[in-house]
Amino acid sequence: MSKLPVVDASLACCAPLSDPALSEQEAAELARVFKALADPVRLRLLNLIASQEGGEACVCDLTGPFELTGPTISHHLKVLRQAGLITGERRGTWVYYQVIPEALTRLSGLFALPALTSA
Amino acid sequence: MSKLPVVDASLACCAPLSDPALSEQEAAELARVFKALADPVRLRLLNLIASQEGGEACVCDLTGPFELTGPTISHHLKVLRQAGLITGERRGTWVYYQVIPEALTRLSGLFALPALTSA
Repeated sequence: MSKLPVVDASLACCAPLSDPALSEQEAAELARVFKALADPVRLRLLNLIASQEGGEACVCDLTGPFELTGPTISHHLKVLRQAGLITGERRGTWVYYQVIPEALTRLSGLFALPALTSA
Repeated sequence: MSKLPVVDASLACCAPLSDPALSEQEAAELARVFKALADPVRLRLLNLIASQEGGEACVCDLTGPFELTGPTISHHLKVLRQAGLITGERRGTWVYYQVIPEALTRLSGLFALPALTSA
């Protein structure tokens, strides 16, 4: 298991890519977030969580769509959590996951290219 | 060198993550795009290209900021190109790179979460 600390993805980027001078540290933090996203299962898990009514998904609803074991799904959810993209909260038997809206909104802003799209 | 075909990133995603049912194929294509982004040098290269006046950068201006050889920079640029994020065009001695605005705009849309941010 990874021993990397959890990334605060909401802080990892704050300006669009079209702004100059992404720092080396910001680039390193963002690269970790994109590494977490660079897996089809994790993307589908994030999609499943983000598309839930109420923005929350029980882990018990996240294993069915995949031909993967529970521990494998849990590992992928842990990577998404360590990347600062989702939170998980245990309530009774199950863990419930939510996306961190600020993290996704910052990523959305990163790729927004006002100067280019208006050219 | 990778033998993967070039991804058309502008087609790799077309709906926000908060929409249901990202297909397995879309997830696989997007994962390849994020794999290209999961490297600090490539993120900084993309930032350098996207932030250029006129949205275009000569490869001759992209090696200076890095303590890397020309061939290494060229490799990273090739990965970004294969991921459908930038285009490169040779004019005379140099190759000039531009971001593909549609690809970045689609990624921006992928992380836009209207349902969640209004909650």
